[in-house]
Amino acid sequence: MIHGLSAFPLTPMNESSIDLHAFAGLVERLAAAGVGSMGVLGSTGSYAYLEKAERMRVLREALAHSGDVPVIVGIGALRTRDVLALARDAEDAGAAGLLLAPVSYQPLKEHEVYTLFESVCTAVGTPICVYDNPGTTHFRFSDELHGRIAALPNIASIKIPRLSDDPAEAAARVTALRAHLPAHVTLGISGDAAAVRGLAAGCDGWYSVTGGLFPGVVQQITRAAGTGDMATAQAVSARLAPLWALYDRFGGIRVMACAAALMGLCAEDCLPRPLLGLRGEERAHVAQVLRGLELL
Amino acid sequence: MIHGLSAFPLTPMNESSIDLHAFAGLVERLAAAGVGSMGVLGSTGSYAYLEKAERMRVLREALAHSGDVPVIVGIGALRTRDVLALARDAEDAGAAGLLLAPVSYQPLKEHEVYTLFESVCTAVGTPICVYDNPGTTHFRFSDELHGRIAALPNIASIKIPRLSDDPAEAAARVTALRAHLPAHVTLGISGDAAAVRGLAAGCDGWYSVTGGLFPGVVQQITRAAGTGDMATAQAVSARLAPLWALYDRFGGIRVMACAAALMGLCAEDCLPRPLLGLRGEERAHVAQVLRGLELL
Repeated sequence: MIHGLSAFPLTPMNESSIDLHAFAGLVERLAAAGVGSMGVLGSTGSYAYLEKAERMRVLREALAHSGDVPVIVGIGALRTRDVLALARDAEDAGAAGLLLAPVSYQPLKEHEVYTLFESVCTAVGTPICVYDNPGTTHFRFSDELHGRIAALPNIASIKIPRLSDDPAEAAARVTALRAHLPAHVTLGISGDAAAVRGLAAGCDGWYSVTGGLFPGVVQQITRAAGTGDMATAQAVSARLAPLWALYDRFGGIRVMACAAALMGLCAEDCLPRPLLGLRGEERAHVAQVLRGLELL
Repeated sequence: MIHGLSAFPLTPMNESSIDLHAFAGLVERLAAAGVGSMGVLGSTGSYAYLEKAERMRVLREALAHSGDVPVIVGIGALRTRDVLALARDAEDAGAAGLLLAPVSYQPLKEHEVYTLFESVCTAVGTPICVYDNPGTTHFRFSDELHGRIAALPNIASIKIPRLSDDPAEAAARVTALRAHLPAHVTLGISGDAAAVRGLAAGCDGWYSVTGGLFPGVVQQITRAAGTGDMATAQAVSARLAPLWALYDRFGGIRVMACAAALMGLCAEDCLPRPLLGLRGEERAHVAQVLRGLELL
């Protein structure tokens, strides 16, 4: 399910509607760049903020503009009934994969998360990626739980959060997790700032926010890593340090929304409120950093 | 907005519908007990798991069965557009107060939370309670932000989370927060296990999960505290220690759902999945504790 770059585009919107035209443009850029796959309606695609019908419209638009690139779609929701409906609709529409995070309001217990994945795995036959993102779901998977879920039918991949800054610890973490997983379940790293460490530690690919808008520079990293040239991969990632600092300061989604608007790819302030776009000095700072990196 | 007990009932449901009959029964019990107010569709009322139309049906049912007791209703949602729609609908329906938590998926910035409250305060004229619950929203208010929001029109109360176990620290916390607030803004404690400490520390009342099902025992505490008899209030709360331990272990909502079913007030497993009801030994343990406390 994940080899090289899986790119996660924004879903530009305003308070009254989704900008499907701008979204289609973002999808077409990724198709033209030849990314390995794209993950629409991920966290950066604001899946959590949209109604089920809106999410189906976004998925259909992605499928209509993605060319030969497989489309993975986020099906997470607070309620299992909604997850199941989204999973069935996405399968019927032709999604290549389903990305499922255990989104929570009331903190979830391990057996509740297991049962959620079991319900979806028995309802559909499309490959599923387990989305492990404690920063937004506030659920922490144990390795044992990852192993039990990975043994369910249709589980194809795990999108894992940022690894330790220490390369040896990062590699040990990947090795420890893999010991719980069937061989066919791939691991994709997320958390762009340290993703190159995930590739060095043996992940199969990179589920990337940056790649949703700047696929070229991320492909430089994934392609170098794919040939074992970790020095080049690390050098390209290190050059992007000012971008990673923006993510830490503003959150990746606000930086990507600002960048897409600066590039003329969507309107200003394309995020669902209460999220607010960057303005004034913050916007100017993002522009300066992106120009310095020759990304604008 | 809050004096004495504000009781937060469950919203019993299953995967296909809301059990409005059981819900009306819970509301009628609270009206008969003469609680100070009730908070429907709070966290324990599973507001986050329901569609807007479902939430309106629940609110109307509450208003039809609440007698003279003021009804506060949760209007939180991930998206501001939904919060505004819920606020307007609740005001039109006749809610006495609106309870608003800054629910998050992407972590929110302070100015985003301020803007959310500002939007709602200018859209409706119904008193608003700021719902500060980092355990479910993952947003932490600063006292300065509480002060700025409390200065907005219509802000009537703040529902604050559990205070320190140290009485002096708890009292200092309440004093420090009050220094940022206009005098008309009340403070209600939540986190039932330590709520008596909030009352001792000077909170105006108790937003209570326990009170949603067992109003009598909570009223013993709030009434004693209201007359300054903190020794009695603390003794009654201390006697409930086995119940507080159940909340720590299972989460309050699962314990309340189990208790309501044991009392014959709703069906087994009345929570929205992925939340799962307690079964087997866990259910038997809850029954044993409740019988020991003469609550069953």
